[in-house]
Amino acid sequence: MATTPLQNLIQLSTKIVAVGRNYASHAKELGNAVPKDPVLFLKPTSSYLENGGTIKIPHNEGSLHHEVELAVVIGKKARDVPQSSAMDYVAGYALALDMTARDLQAAAKSAGLPWTLAKGQDTFTPISSILPKTQVPNPDDLELWLKVDDEIRQKGSTKDMIFKIPFLISHISSVITLFEGDVILTGTPQGVGPVKEGQTITAGITGLVDVKFNVEKGNKPANS
Amino acid sequence: MATTPLQNLIQLSTKIVAVGRNYASHAKELGNAVPKDPVLFLKPTSSYLENGGTIKIPHNEGSLHHEVELAVVIGKKARDVPQSSAMDYVAGYALALDMTARDLQAAAKSAGLPWTLAKGQDTFTPISSILPKTQVPNPDDLELWLKVDDEIRQKGSTKDMIFKIPFLISHISSVITLFEGDVILTGTPQGVGPVKEGQTITAGITGLVDVKFNVEKGNKPANS
Ligand SMILES: [Mg+2]
Ligand SMILES: [Mg+2]
Ligand SMILES: [Mg+2]
Repeated sequence: MATTPLQNLIQLSTKIVAVGRNYASHAKELGNAVPKDPVLFLKPTSSYLENGGTIKIPHNEGSLHHEVELAVVIGKKARDVPQSSAMDYVAGYALALDMTARDLQAAAKSAGLPWTLAKGQDTFTPISSILPKTQVPNPDDLELWLKVDDEIRQKGSTKDMIFKIPFLISHISSVITLFEGDVILTGTPQGVGPVKEGQTITAGITGLVDVKFNVEKGNKPANS
Repeated sequence: MATTPLQNLIQLSTKIVAVGRNYASHAKELGNAVPKDPVLFLKPTSSYLENGGTIKIPHNEGSLHHEVELAVVIGKKARDVPQSSAMDYVAGYALALDMTARDLQAAAKSAGLPWTLAKGQDTFTPISSILPKTQVPNPDDLELWLKVDDEIRQKGSTKDMIFKIPFLISHISSVITLFEGDVILTGTPQGVGPVKEGQTITAGITGLVDVKFNVEKGNKPANS
């Protein structure tokens, strides 16, 4: 598995499979039922943003919501993987933000339409460098936190994930092949909320990694 | 642009951006309004299936729907591209099927959930070899056709697309960067319908390319 340098895995990535409503507390704050099966959606790799970058709010939106999440980075091709060996397919972990245009998402939900524009625009997946899994002995007991400027907005533990990592890898790989470098976003704990132009997001996994992103307004497309 | 051999572009691909309801006749047959903006969703590249392959119906579904579509293959990175130069970003075209688990899609729509499992499972994007754009002087006047066994099910012209290719490239690239090898599926004309285990799909762009796929039942995952 170790032929690809760890930090290059994100460049290899062909997809981000994100899990919605994976913390009961967050499902509740959005008024959603706790799901029986994982809610899955795709984000494109064009939405990645490296640590230190600038998150762009689409020109016609007033704000974006932050969702702090544990990212699982896949180390080798996974198809029909049983839970018992699922952790063998993990190369490492990262801290990611699943930025969400909540108004667009709400409109898509009520129209029965995909969440693509709400979740998939450029800069909507800020992500840290990758932590090798040897540095993360227990991914089920990590504290995730997020601040907007000086205000703590999210703090939660991966202990509270409804669907755990081996289940997610097994479940996803039973229908969608995962490739080396692909990323699973495992959902967000409660406390999501808006971030506005001029603000700064800091976030991290306590004791392991932290990241910082500025937030600015995107330009109105000059064309089309 | 011509550094990557054309047939290798699909291997480079990091995403498939699909357009829903881009033919008024198909929107109508599913009881959908003709959209004011393109309906966009993502399919993962793990769903590609080469000509001659076998489409797998998920073990818990009775059928899948076929949707025959013109695929546009992007030749170089595209961000904020105006319509006037959009065609410069096209490397070629292909014939693709946007296989759809219609029951899963209907359930997702009414629950306000993403279409990922309805559209994104392995083998759900059968695709032909790539036609260089020099072989396709007028992509706005191509006849697409699809047969299940001996029965013609879909026949339509790209003339009837609501949102044309330059608009789609400009619109998508204003929010989501397109990379070399990425594919846009441009929507399906009317006549979508179920295909069952044991049947064969043939489809093509009249005069340019045709493809053939068998349909079988997928296995029940042994695990999870
Ligand atoms: Mg999320
Ligand atoms: Mg989607
Ligand atoms: Mg379609």
